[in-house]
Amino acid sequence: MTRIAVDAMGGDYAPRAIVEGAVWGAYEYNVPIELVGREDKILAELDRIKQEGIVFSGSGIFKPRRIKINPEKLDIKVTHASETIEMGEAPGQAIRRKKNSSIVLAVKAVASGSSDAVVAAGSTGAAMASSLFGLGRLPGIERPAICLTLPSMKKPVVVIDGGANASSTPEMLFQFGIMGSIYSKTILGIENPRIGVLNIGEERGKGNELVNAAYQMFEQKKEQLNFIGNVEGKEVFLGNCDVIVCDGFVGNVALKTIEGASSMLFFMIKEQFTDNIISSVIGALAKPFMKKIYKRINYEEFGGQLLLGVKGITVICHGRSTAYAIKNAIRVAKEAVEKEVNKKIDAFYKATIEN
Amino acid sequence: MTRIAVDAMGGDYAPRAIVEGAVWGAYEYNVPIELVGREDKILAELDRIKQEGIVFSGSGIFKPRRIKINPEKLDIKVTHASETIEMGEAPGQAIRRKKNSSIVLAVKAVASGSSDAVVAAGSTGAAMASSLFGLGRLPGIERPAICLTLPSMKKPVVVIDGGANASSTPEMLFQFGIMGSIYSKTILGIENPRIGVLNIGEERGKGNELVNAAYQMFEQKKEQLNFIGNVEGKEVFLGNCDVIVCDGFVGNVALKTIEGASSMLFFMIKEQFTDNIISSVIGALAKPFMKKIYKRINYEEFGGQLLLGVKGITVICHGRSTAYAIKNAIRVAKEAVEKEVNKKIDAFYKATIEN
Repeated sequence: MTRIAVDAMGGDYAPRAIVEGAVWGAYEYNVPIELVGREDKILAELDRIKQEGIVFSGSGIFKPRRIKINPEKLDIKVTHASETIEMGEAPGQAIRRKKNSSIVLAVKAVASGSSDAVVAAGSTGAAMASSLFGLGRLPGIERPAICLTLPSMKKPVVVIDGGANASSTPEMLFQFGIMGSIYSKTILGIENPRIGVLNIGEERGKGNELVNAAYQMFEQKKEQLNFIGNVEGKEVFLGNCDVIVCDGFVGNVALKTIEGASSMLFFMIKEQFTDNIISSVIGALAKPFMKKIYKRINYEEFGGQLLLGVKGITVICHGRSTAYAIKNAIRVAKEAVEKEVNKKIDAFYKATIEN
Repeated sequence: MTRIAVDAMGGDYAPRAIVEGAVWGAYEYNVPIELVGREDKILAELDRIKQEGIVFSGSGIFKPRRIKINPEKLDIKVTHASETIEMGEAPGQAIRRKKNSSIVLAVKAVASGSSDAVVAAGSTGAAMASSLFGLGRLPGIERPAICLTLPSMKKPVVVIDGGANASSTPEMLFQFGIMGSIYSKTILGIENPRIGVLNIGEERGKGNELVNAAYQMFEQKKEQLNFIGNVEGKEVFLGNCDVIVCDGFVGNVALKTIEGASSMLFFMIKEQFTDNIISSVIGALAKPFMKKIYKRINYEEFGGQLLLGVKGITVICHGRSTAYAIKNAIRVAKEAVEKEVNKKIDAFYKATIEN
């Protein structure tokens, strides 16, 4: 049975939110967990959860509630890690220097087979670096990429790379497209996913050298991949393309810009509906509906994003992850393991690209 | 007195929406206009406006209304242009081949001094190319850039380059920062604007070679420019940085991604509030408040974006521009002329950079 290793020390609200999320995930998805981090702290959290349950604040969207779970009744293993990698540290150096850090040992748990996937909400760079060095790359893949799943007007859309690499080659973009396509098919259930290259215009030849060279590589494999050409930024949410390929720099900026835009919008909505008595009453009436929308686009629902291209499953979570987000990230990890995403990438690569 | 040349043939709803917007702008801002395009078509539109007025559909946000304006009573000049550059054409070729196109002649009107600024809603590439070749560059500026003004939680934020260049050098990014800063101060009235480099993390050394080299250039001129370091995508809307510098590829993708995100959000809101009778009633009550928000973030309000770096004022509008957007673009052009943005860029450059 799939076991998920969780870096208990990574994330803004670690270890509390992470341990809570892990316990919640173990309970809800019936999946064994390996919590990696400072043993004393983890045991204290588990003890607290046994006494108090998980107090879910609701993140301003849901009703706050208390979930009673006894961690002792779940299959939860604790692995001690004496060190923690902090957000500011240079990832490459940090993983070499801190061999007993929670993220390095969580990845090691996967490499050694004691767990099948790792969930990490700490430094993205450290999670990537330790996965890359601890698990190795899939054959044919030069660099792993973060595979974002975003809501759209239609089906969920994959954006790859979401920020694993600050600069890319055309070959890398091409490999991202293959991995994203298999993810879309295997995990999101989309038949023959449409692949597009993110560009500043739809016409062939638009944009910079990188995207143009990637375009040509995709075009040459049109028979194996459902390549639809260039797509513009707006396509991310329109849902007319299933896998949007981009450089990690561009993907990360776009993602965070959207985060900013949605923060602003919900700020404006709140401001507008607390302006006076009438607007407050109408706002109160409209709130349940707005919450439904927020729930659809809330990153916590998606839990975490897969790092594709490494020999193993690594789910990278938002630094601000709540227990709810971690719980959902465990679902993502479990699905990726059970549906054998990596095996399929490998097989696809062997069958269509190498020949 | 400032006269604004308007490319009457550019844009999805040209010439109708463009001529209407130009007339509306002439009336509202008391500014003389030079309409450039097919004379017969423009005269027919002007005649129609004289009879019917401007029918403003409201773009789904405002109440539709009819504005009665007699163009004959306004200072509107018509300049015939026999050709039009279409959206798909390669800009460089098109402006060389179609010397009598509306955009080329509109820019020529500025170069010859018959107008002071040009407003263009057609092919962005053609507007840029004709401005670059017809007006020339400001001294010290290698390439012009599109200066986006976006709403934020606080004051409006400038994002430069919004897509004029598909690839950039560090020197170009540095020059964009200077231009954006002067624009922010002169037009938006922000004292000592904070300049940031758009990056995938705030720490120094993050990101790719381009942004790192640009960072260093800004740092060396810290005494003349209020450089605050790297900023992430979310800052675009948080309002803690006044001028966000980026490559045109990144800026364009981010902008269009936001367009897509807001389309999706308003689509979801509409869906949610038409779901059943109760939600429809609440939706109807909430509508006036939502409209206020939409008005704050609607691109039509901003009208158009300045192309900075050319010896003249070029305002580039969205291809989908309505009459309302064109009217506002005329306000943007008028302000840029009256506040002498270019003269200030020139003076700043001479005083601080060359020495």
